[in-house]
Amino acid sequence: MQGSMMDVPLLLSRLIDYAANHHGQTAVVARRIDGSIEHSNWQQIRSRAKTLANALLDKPFSSETRFASLTWNTNNHLEVFYAVLGIGAPLHTLNPRLTVDDLNYMIALMEDRVCFYDANTQPLAEAIAASSDHISQWIYLDEGEAMPATTLPNAVALSAFKAGFDDQLAWPSFDENDAATVCFTSGTTGRPKGVAYSHRSLTLTAMNMTMADMYGNARNGELVCAMPVAPIFHANGWMMPFSAPMNGHKLVLPGRDFTPKGIVELMEQEQVTIAGAVPTVWNDLMKEVDRRGITLPALDTALVAGTAIPERLFDELASRGIQVRTTWGMTESPGATRATLPPGASQHSDDQRRAITIGRQGRVGLHADLRIVDEDGQPLPHDGVAAGVLQVRGPTVLGRYIGESEEQTREWLDTGDIAVIYPDSTMQIVDRAKDVIKSGGEWISSPQLEAAAISHPDIELAAAIAVPHPRWQERPMLLCTLKNRDSALDADTLREHMTQHVAKWWLPEEILFIDAMPLTPTGKISKLELRKQYASRPEQSF
Amino acid sequence: MQGSMMDVPLLLSRLIDYAANHHGQTAVVARRIDGSIEHSNWQQIRSRAKTLANALLDKPFSSETRFASLTWNTNNHLEVFYAVLGIGAPLHTLNPRLTVDDLNYMIALMEDRVCFYDANTQPLAEAIAASSDHISQWIYLDEGEAMPATTLPNAVALSAFKAGFDDQLAWPSFDENDAATVCFTSGTTGRPKGVAYSHRSLTLTAMNMTMADMYGNARNGELVCAMPVAPIFHANGWMMPFSAPMNGHKLVLPGRDFTPKGIVELMEQEQVTIAGAVPTVWNDLMKEVDRRGITLPALDTALVAGTAIPERLFDELASRGIQVRTTWGMTESPGATRATLPPGASQHSDDQRRAITIGRQGRVGLHADLRIVDEDGQPLPHDGVAAGVLQVRGPTVLGRYIGESEEQTREWLDTGDIAVIYPDSTMQIVDRAKDVIKSGGEWISSPQLEAAAISHPDIELAAAIAVPHPRWQERPMLLCTLKNRDSALDADTLREHMTQHVAKWWLPEEILFIDAMPLTPTGKISKLELRKQYASRPEQSF
Repeated sequence: MQGSMMDVPLLLSRLIDYAANHHGQTAVVARRIDGSIEHSNWQQIRSRAKTLANALLDKPFSSETRFASLTWNTNNHLEVFYAVLGIGAPLHTLNPRLTVDDLNYMIALMEDRVCFYDANTQPLAEAIAASSDHISQWIYLDEGEAMPATTLPNAVALSAFKAGFDDQLAWPSFDENDAATVCFTSGTTGRPKGVAYSHRSLTLTAMNMTMADMYGNARNGELVCAMPVAPIFHANGWMMPFSAPMNGHKLVLPGRDFTPKGIVELMEQEQVTIAGAVPTVWNDLMKEVDRRGITLPALDTALVAGTAIPERLFDELASRGIQVRTTWGMTESPGATRATLPPGASQHSDDQRRAITIGRQGRVGLHADLRIVDEDGQPLPHDGVAAGVLQVRGPTVLGRYIGESEEQTREWLDTGDIAVIYPDSTMQIVDRAKDVIKSGGEWISSPQLEAAAISHPDIELAAAIAVPHPRWQERPMLLCTLKNRDSALDADTLREHMTQHVAKWWLPEEILFIDAMPLTPTGKISKLELRKQYASRPEQSF
Repeated sequence: MQGSMMDVPLLLSRLIDYAANHHGQTAVVARRIDGSIEHSNWQQIRSRAKTLANALLDKPFSSETRFASLTWNTNNHLEVFYAVLGIGAPLHTLNPRLTVDDLNYMIALMEDRVCFYDANTQPLAEAIAASSDHISQWIYLDEGEAMPATTLPNAVALSAFKAGFDDQLAWPSFDENDAATVCFTSGTTGRPKGVAYSHRSLTLTAMNMTMADMYGNARNGELVCAMPVAPIFHANGWMMPFSAPMNGHKLVLPGRDFTPKGIVELMEQEQVTIAGAVPTVWNDLMKEVDRRGITLPALDTALVAGTAIPERLFDELASRGIQVRTTWGMTESPGATRATLPPGASQHSDDQRRAITIGRQGRVGLHADLRIVDEDGQPLPHDGVAAGVLQVRGPTVLGRYIGESEEQTREWLDTGDIAVIYPDSTMQIVDRAKDVIKSGGEWISSPQLEAAAISHPDIELAAAIAVPHPRWQERPMLLCTLKNRDSALDADTLREHMTQHVAKWWLPEEILFIDAMPLTPTGKISKLELRKQYASRPEQSF
């Protein structure tokens, strides 16, 4: 028997409409590319998005057109989000930190046709256009300044593109399972893999992120002011571009300035109440607060993910009255665990509460179910002892990467982490199953690093492993054997060679030339052995 | 382009699995039919539900079978909820306060085949069975006692029905738009109308009910203990049978004992932190608290709906440290408005905050959008001045009543209320557009009352109107004209006659015989004129 409720899809246009209609004057504040601050509000953001949508629909673009953005956390980017998603087209948020080669690979795979760029990303855009012609329309996100000269074909300034259009538009309706934002991840082996979030999955995730179980210090009538200290091109910036309008939150975006100085300035001026960042960034922010000799009285909640929070940082935040909420997610499963303590933990001792916050990464949630399995895929108990491969499943979890066939759809997604789940459903990541390195909250792919090294004619074998790092949690270390012992190749020369293939921040600080690679019985490089020898991995390294 | 996320439906079985897996030891406490208290937990409730599901699936029952329940807020009822919904069948929660005639009408319309009943509802069940044979299997919800003798055909005790089955079962998967619980409402004209909630709509509503915006005093790690002071057969009892397991809340159910004594006893013993009730009930509960000379230190939140909260009650709750959350919903659109103050209102003065709580009924929410329209269906501004017919739309709102055709599907649902929406999106109901009476939070249908009166041979015309009542907010008043002025018919005789057709609590205390009905220009009875003459309607009558 069918239910009798309305068939109303969960579309993201509903969120911006909700915010504009019911929280229209609530501020949206962003740093421009030039560093200055732009004050807007939800009503204006919707008006801008609808005007842009009208301009897009006037061209031979449609919900079938693939759009890309190559820009930072600005109001313009937010406008582009809601314009493109509002008309039902996917928005592929490109990461300007990647190489031209990787970006072109992703653009080709997605068949992107229109790309938004800004004053900062223009050189990168031009490099992309110089080596491929996928993009037939470039749109410059101007912020009041004249559009600079460019070699980009068919480039136009946003303001000129929108000229003559108004904001009269009723958002179209379509399938909630249609693609919304698209992100690529290098979290697993090989080339970057595409994740197309759907309107449904993002709506559910944003709801999860703002349930009482996540915002465990919600206060009646408080104006929440949320700031993602992460690019919104990266897994939607803590989901805040969606959870903020859904709840009438004030939103603060750092533009392209992720320096502690820039972030703390905005936090203080705009009275940010909740921000999301990885532990190293929180550490830097607190140092900056001290350097300035200020306090941030409005800031009450630190959302922490990317890696477990070190004890010292937890105590430092607590001493400033900032509550820590640890959570866990990945591009393939954003905002997955619940960030509050288990119900009833308020009765625990301080030490008990510390123990389940420090080192753990939130609690199993509803729409992203977690389990751990042994080598045969058999579920292991949640007893705080058994460690297994962490798997995740739910309507907010990736089923198949872009380009994969229907038969490749996963029932459970392997996260590549080894985890323990405790009886109170808190989760702790204890090791990495797959061969990846997580640096400053972002993934570095070992196989790609190795391929870059091996492309040098003198290199025989190469193996990248993660080594603990006090600032970035992990950095890659590269171990190589030479084809010819007499080769004059040194680390600097090899690094220089590798810049052709991988982003600069991927380059290993340490490159060691060793005599022989340790091999497994089946002849593969034994990373286990390499890690033992070269990378001591204490559980909490700082 | 399709999104790449998992195709995982929003099913209610996921909620009980979540609670059992991650909050298995969290208590579920209910009063039995005999008045004693039963302590259970989420793990046990799931185990019971799965065992019952296995027993049901062993019979020639399936997701096509229509199930009904005729019982109160007990753990058995909760078990029946999750067993029936878990196998994908609809559960029609019958209201034991209705007449045999109405119940038979609803059972026939739904084609119910199996019905669960209890020691209290057995006489009603026998009356139903005596006058119809829709139900082919009766299941007695025993609570340790022997099953009493009954005239019901094919009756079996729950414990006997489940004997030999275990709780090994993986819940099946099916369409999230399939019917889950089914409620009938007499809120509009004519016969009761059926609302089939879907798994999707109930999941979304339960999420909404537990977002930070609803639970505006969520505390990190607190064990929320929720108690619906309303039957769970009535629009799912504040959604708590679903929102509690979804969040690992402790749940307390009052069985069939809704007396202030019974409720306060449970609140005190079980340390209820949040409860939902209509204002008159809250009033009675506070009186009972005073009578006992106790306080309820754990109780921090009073969810209030059904009607606006009177100022005196608001102050009384506040003086006890209980925060008031006003919300609004109806069977067709449960848990529709957000119960917290508008974001930023924490900066308002106390008086300002009182003004937007007292007399108003929450804020416009996300999945149930509200608007007011004029007589031509044109939207009116949300300016706090314009009053119009309140309409609601969203994935948690009824599209068409059971039995209506696809063409009858509503784009917006008329609520039958006249409301004002303020610029801060708080909503105030100022009048009733349709001809209904709301008594103690439940609807009484004027046309049904009128039809019952007119069925008496001496009555010419009959009109029921609502009059303010200090306890029940409204009670019906009946105005009649006689076919023959010489008739000896008196109020008591007419009331006695009407008991054949309507529930006892519907019967008007006041029945007036008048000389002539005031009529509109088109010849209809002018209820407007009747209300003016007989029912002064001050905005807040107590």
